[in-house]
Amino acid sequence: MADLFTVLTPREAWSRLEPHLHPIDRVETVPTSESLGRVLAEDTSAPVDLPHFARSSMDGYAVRAEDTHGATEGLPAYLKVAGEVSMGQPAGVRLSPGEAALIHTGGMLPEGADAVVMVENTRGVDAAMIEAVRPVAKGENVIRVGEDMARGEALLSRGSLLRPQDIGSLLSLGITRVPVFHRVRVALIPTGDELVPPETDPGPGQIRNTNAFALAALAAKAGAVPVVLDIVRDSYESLQAAARQALETADIVVFSGGSSVSTRDMTSRVIDSLGKPGVLVHGVSLRPGKPTILAAVGRQPAFGLPGNPASSMVTFGIFVTPAIYRLSGCRRLPQSLAVKARLARNIPSAAGREDYVPVKLEEKGGDLLADPVFGKSNFLFAMVRGDGVARVPLDKGGMMAGEWVEVTLF
Amino acid sequence: MADLFTVLTPREAWSRLEPHLHPIDRVETVPTSESLGRVLAEDTSAPVDLPHFARSSMDGYAVRAEDTHGATEGLPAYLKVAGEVSMGQPAGVRLSPGEAALIHTGGMLPEGADAVVMVENTRGVDAAMIEAVRPVAKGENVIRVGEDMARGEALLSRGSLLRPQDIGSLLSLGITRVPVFHRVRVALIPTGDELVPPETDPGPGQIRNTNAFALAALAAKAGAVPVVLDIVRDSYESLQAAARQALETADIVVFSGGSSVSTRDMTSRVIDSLGKPGVLVHGVSLRPGKPTILAAVGRQPAFGLPGNPASSMVTFGIFVTPAIYRLSGCRRLPQSLAVKARLARNIPSAAGREDYVPVKLEEKGGDLLADPVFGKSNFLFAMVRGDGVARVPLDKGGMMAGEWVEVTLF
Repeated sequence: MADLFTVLTPREAWSRLEPHLHPIDRVETVPTSESLGRVLAEDTSAPVDLPHFARSSMDGYAVRAEDTHGATEGLPAYLKVAGEVSMGQPAGVRLSPGEAALIHTGGMLPEGADAVVMVENTRGVDAAMIEAVRPVAKGENVIRVGEDMARGEALLSRGSLLRPQDIGSLLSLGITRVPVFHRVRVALIPTGDELVPPETDPGPGQIRNTNAFALAALAAKAGAVPVVLDIVRDSYESLQAAARQALETADIVVFSGGSSVSTRDMTSRVIDSLGKPGVLVHGVSLRPGKPTILAAVGRQPAFGLPGNPASSMVTFGIFVTPAIYRLSGCRRLPQSLAVKARLARNIPSAAGREDYVPVKLEEKGGDLLADPVFGKSNFLFAMVRGDGVARVPLDKGGMMAGEWVEVTLF
Repeated sequence: MADLFTVLTPREAWSRLEPHLHPIDRVETVPTSESLGRVLAEDTSAPVDLPHFARSSMDGYAVRAEDTHGATEGLPAYLKVAGEVSMGQPAGVRLSPGEAALIHTGGMLPEGADAVVMVENTRGVDAAMIEAVRPVAKGENVIRVGEDMARGEALLSRGSLLRPQDIGSLLSLGITRVPVFHRVRVALIPTGDELVPPETDPGPGQIRNTNAFALAALAAKAGAVPVVLDIVRDSYESLQAAARQALETADIVVFSGGSSVSTRDMTSRVIDSLGKPGVLVHGVSLRPGKPTILAAVGRQPAFGLPGNPASSMVTFGIFVTPAIYRLSGCRRLPQSLAVKARLARNIPSAAGREDYVPVKLEEKGGDLLADPVFGKSNFLFAMVRGDGVARVPLDKGGMMAGEWVEVTLF
């Protein structure tokens, strides 16, 4: 329980947490066609040459390149049509000097041929004869054996987040099953005496438990499997019991709620009671989200997020989402999480604190503009009206219209 | 079958297709907590006031504001502690003039109180008495009834793509089930005499069917439900039969393959045989992806994509992904599909044609750099090594290092 009441910068806070984030090592094998968004657990390389036969990259005529040398519109090369290469079959033709074979894009180059003349550069003379009006070089319009991928060549490395093109490339090499890391499981523990389930009408002083579900959706967006536990009342024993249950079933534990100082302290005492190293950070210089707890119990990270709905989402985005990617074995965060945009209006802030401000994004004159959504006390509804949250860096006492900001998409 | 052999710009091509894209009107109701990524089918407004009781936004003391007027460090206001407001319960206290009640963040303001003094601005005198060292105004540190959302206020409109914060806000108002549009179903028809299933070892002249699976993954990323049909051989009758089956079960039909001119013409004749308006565009001035077919059969869009893996992915991203969003009822494309970056190197191109070039993205000195991935003949593996595809606009005969490009993330 180090430096419990020292507020750290977001970067310092992350650097205290980071050494405790270990990729989960549970691996399963799934069909490649169903591996979208999964993280590859092993380096892969090509088990075969691709293509495994020389293919035409054009519609045209397979030829011996030397037979076309010097061919022009005025002085074409006359070639005897020896046949046609059918798609999906061995090229059932063998070219002798002075011969050509009709071939389609992707067709197998017949024996004796070493290039393809595009159909646009040929003229039919009769059924048995064509003119080539341009020369081709050896290998022109031909994809050589192993030219796309040579057998043994490295394809995707361990830690790749699998995308559609990765799936296509694996399948093209006959890799129909892939080893991937298990999805990261995130337990969300809603805490607070004032909470009721969303389907219950809250009485005086009560509110609906919504944070845990919004955070579960954020976890799902990051590729994790969220589990929302039952609401836990503000008592040390029940919080500790819920935390123990969560640590048994999940990789990451998130306490959501507990806005008041006494509840936050209880969360932090409970985390410390569960194992080393315990609480690493208690308080971060950001707004919203100052009363954030970062912790680890053994190899399992644990987070105590503020009870305010928007604060909990912002701090989840700053700390829990990158932690999920780290545990998932993913080598780097996907590019789609943030964009750069120009501020449409000034944003006030205070130096020494990172501020997160909901913004609407709009394309204007080729630039992406970020227009702050001000107004209501409840930042959650500003996030509903906005597209993302702009970051005002720690060292800025505010930002001016026209400055570039980083916008995390929510 | 209009202008069959006229190559159109991508914008012109889209504008021919666009009038034939109608949002599907099938609606289902799902639990709000499971609605991530779905499209809302009805406008929603707040059925209740939020909050439904006046809440404290701070840890502190509920007071009558007038009792604190003029309070300073040197001349504090003395207030009698009348009790404590428990979380999740009606405030069981009633303040008389000169009284205060201990209250936590989110607690219900007791009768008689109209403001909250932050705990930091109070000092304890004894168990029954505190000093307020700063004045508060009426309503300070209090969230009024309906201040977050007033009953009847508009929340999310029809066509919203539901995000974590939307789920949170709906649940906070007790909206636990939402009407959403059905997911768009996309049928993928792999065509070609040369294709074998990915798990089969291809013989001479044969290749594995991979495009349909890469495109299925792209469809899934866009929120659609992909269905990969069996491989269809290059015959008019079998292609027509597969297309009929696809039109019965899916909202969008995509033919993948058929690189050769004759196969493309067959695809286009089959589409025209199925109903009006038939083929709308055959040939688009872009690279890769020139031999693209855009069509509609009644209210169902149909696409004939090139057989080259990368061409099929690029044209899917340009035409099919936006069509999926349009059919899904979504009011606008998500921001996360594209980013702006500076080119790291020159890209050659030709004016009058849109070029798409695979790039790696890298953060450098605060800028996002797009570094073209050149080299191999097979663009698919360049897309595997890259993060996205940069667009060289139609009117540019190439682009220079340092210029801003739009990068579609794949």
